[in-house]
Amino acid sequence: MADASRHDRTARQLRLLSDALDTGRLGPVRRLINTLSPAEIANLLESLPTPKRSLVWGLVDPEDDGEVLVHVGEDVRESLIAEMDADELVAAVEDLDIDDLADIAEDLPDQVIAEVLRSMDRENRDRLEQVLSFPEGSAGRLMNPDVVTVRADTTVDVVLRYLRLRGELPDHTDYLFVVSRRHQYLGRVSLSSLLTHETSTPINELIDDEQSAIPAGTSEREVANQFSDHDWVSAPVVDESNILLGRITIDDVVDIIREQAEHQALGAAGLGEDEDLFSPVGRAMRRRLVWLFVNLCTAFIAANVVGNFEGTIDKLVALAVLMPMVAGLGGNAGTQVLALTIRGLALGQVGASNVLILLWKELRVALFNGLLMGAVLGLIVYAWFRNPGLSLVIFVALTVNLLLAAMVGVTIPLLLRRMGFDPALGSGIFLTALTDSLGFFTFLGLATLVLME
Amino acid sequence: MADASRHDRTARQLRLLSDALDTGRLGPVRRLINTLSPAEIANLLESLPTPKRSLVWGLVDPEDDGEVLVHVGEDVRESLIAEMDADELVAAVEDLDIDDLADIAEDLPDQVIAEVLRSMDRENRDRLEQVLSFPEGSAGRLMNPDVVTVRADTTVDVVLRYLRLRGELPDHTDYLFVVSRRHQYLGRVSLSSLLTHETSTPINELIDDEQSAIPAGTSEREVANQFSDHDWVSAPVVDESNILLGRITIDDVVDIIREQAEHQALGAAGLGEDEDLFSPVGRAMRRRLVWLFVNLCTAFIAANVVGNFEGTIDKLVALAVLMPMVAGLGGNAGTQVLALTIRGLALGQVGASNVLILLWKELRVALFNGLLMGAVLGLIVYAWFRNPGLSLVIFVALTVNLLLAAMVGVTIPLLLRRMGFDPALGSGIFLTALTDSLGFFTFLGLATLVLME
Repeated sequence: MADASRHDRTARQLRLLSDALDTGRLGPVRRLINTLSPAEIANLLESLPTPKRSLVWGLVDPEDDGEVLVHVGEDVRESLIAEMDADELVAAVEDLDIDDLADIAEDLPDQVIAEVLRSMDRENRDRLEQVLSFPEGSAGRLMNPDVVTVRADTTVDVVLRYLRLRGELPDHTDYLFVVSRRHQYLGRVSLSSLLTHETSTPINELIDDEQSAIPAGTSEREVANQFSDHDWVSAPVVDESNILLGRITIDDVVDIIREQAEHQALGAAGLGEDEDLFSPVGRAMRRRLVWLFVNLCTAFIAANVVGNFEGTIDKLVALAVLMPMVAGLGGNAGTQVLALTIRGLALGQVGASNVLILLWKELRVALFNGLLMGAVLGLIVYAWFRNPGLSLVIFVALTVNLLLAAMVGVTIPLLLRRMGFDPALGSGIFLTALTDSLGFFTFLGLATLVLME
Repeated sequence: MADASRHDRTARQLRLLSDALDTGRLGPVRRLINTLSPAEIANLLESLPTPKRSLVWGLVDPEDDGEVLVHVGEDVRESLIAEMDADELVAAVEDLDIDDLADIAEDLPDQVIAEVLRSMDRENRDRLEQVLSFPEGSAGRLMNPDVVTVRADTTVDVVLRYLRLRGELPDHTDYLFVVSRRHQYLGRVSLSSLLTHETSTPINELIDDEQSAIPAGTSEREVANQFSDHDWVSAPVVDESNILLGRITIDDVVDIIREQAEHQALGAAGLGEDEDLFSPVGRAMRRRLVWLFVNLCTAFIAANVVGNFEGTIDKLVALAVLMPMVAGLGGNAGTQVLALTIRGLALGQVGASNVLILLWKELRVALFNGLLMGAVLGLIVYAWFRNPGLSLVIFVALTVNLLLAAMVGVTIPLLLRRMGFDPALGSGIFLTALTDSLGFFTFLGLATLVLME
């Protein structure tokens, strides 16, 4: 047990699985896989290169197929679905919860969806269609319509008898929802209050009406923020007339938070959060090319800046040696500001009311760091090239470039958002484009003014 | 209601608060703040520059002070604590749950801790000391010792009567834990099974013993992975002898997942996830300087590479114009590979068994993209400088640099981890250092070989 704490479980499972696969005997592999939860199997499939992934996918218990499909990233899901025929797919997904089914519906062939809808009873079909009527990324799309409701004008005793008759509750039920005759949401009653109060207690004494319901149009980012701000396990979803439509549970919220995190981490480099570790080379190539071409264009702008100073460089080659330092340090300082601003935007902590104060703080940090680093760099350059003019130029250029980097780091994400783009996506490439061009321009421009006559 | 869905709540609250602060009348500000949950207040405080932050902090209901301190980042917490005297602090934190108190204990003055311990009863003091005996970042440190246990040899009826006597259950109680006479963990019984089964049912028929308990030494990253793999709301924590010590709840796990996400997003730029948006300039400066100095050193290596080719550049200044393009494109392509590898490591999806396959895939992607981008770049350079040798050099150099970038992007995080460092921290700086130096060397080296005679 002490040992379990030191190793990472997924990495260990991956090692065991790889060893088992290497022996070539599939019995042990199958047994190993089927001790795991669907989410763990999903994680392992994502860790496997394509040929092994297909092999292992074939060994997963068909009962788990649907849940595994729900848990893998979109790219991997497509690759797994491509290996199944329509009958297998229908069998895999028809028993999924409505919210899970809605989650992967877009990746399923139309024929499979039609088949699944046909196999459902009227009530479930209506529910699925309602969930699918909400746009992806909204609370309505995330919710599960399977909700246990009670009425306010009853007692704990009546509710307990109803629950015993009803049997099993949906997963993550921590509250029952209290609704009016017209199914409007009135409040909630916790399971724990049902357990800790006398059976004669009227339900309306136990109602907690402080938690307001989530409107179905709310964005999933906002849903995630509300869950973590209020420590919810489940929350009701309502339409414009406050009619209860379903409920969102913490497990889906945890998935959203993980996806957002990956989005921010991969987005700055211009990758999507669904990027498959072992995606086919052709697909990976095409996706990366988009940003590399953007980068090619921005790099040309920087090269053009340098090109305008060819004459200056021709007279003093040391400038060519030093110019990448000014640009590179500006790029790194700017990346720090950028990361901080993007996080602030994602948390809603940066807005019109404080952006100028943030900029002012970052400019001061940049000024002091620029003066300090510039002085160090100037001294080293003096020791290297024995040219005091050159030292002065690099000192001033570095300070100016750090100031520009701070300005760019704060404004790029805000501008991207203002223009309707995702501030996390590709902002790193725009930032280095600007710090390179501005860095070269400041350094070579100053050198031309000061050192050439 | 429809409106609420379109705006970001935190941003809206921030705007309202800023407007209220600008009027200078504190009554409305206080009323606004005290409609919010502690987590929301924490989020707002993090969004405010220091003078406004102090002002608002003074207006928060003292009842909420403790919870707010738990929810803010470490840097902001220090700044808030600095404004409180010892008595206020003791009053704020003494009613916190044990796990929350343990979470912020390190940031409290010793005198405050001593005072809080004195004010506790014997049982709680022992519990707090036990939690604090586990290292930060372990399951033992995360757990709350406040757990409801039952015995196996009883019935639903007896448990219900016990719960009614006991009254309120701890937050996020979805299962009661079944323990032996020696307090060893045996399994769990869900509240929903207590509600849906007849009162005469023996508890041992309802026990779910499939969920194994979490050893207290488990890392918090591992805890978070297990929660999201198994969709848990709470989980038991045990010592080496399987004695039940406490339980971890989903709200703490959500916080861990958010912190990890911020760690990855800010870490690559060399910032900590606790970095305060409005930290004092001096502190922000010092923190960033560390990485900027690392970057200064690596930039000197790159400059030195260029310096070795001064003679070559002197003969063909176009090289100085083009060399940043080769380095920059390599840096961006490498950053993409790096982001993918760091995520794979964080999820445990990259290990000895598949790293070579990953590398092989990335090398092929880099080769094809390098050939394609190199060809485009070569043609443009030909149109610009009319020098076929230069076009050939940049074509080959870009292809080689993208291959090197792929290699470096896969290996840097693995090397950092192997050496015991955090792969997310500063890896971006090491990557660009290598892609710059290698890019300059390949390009200028090839140019010297091909173009100079």
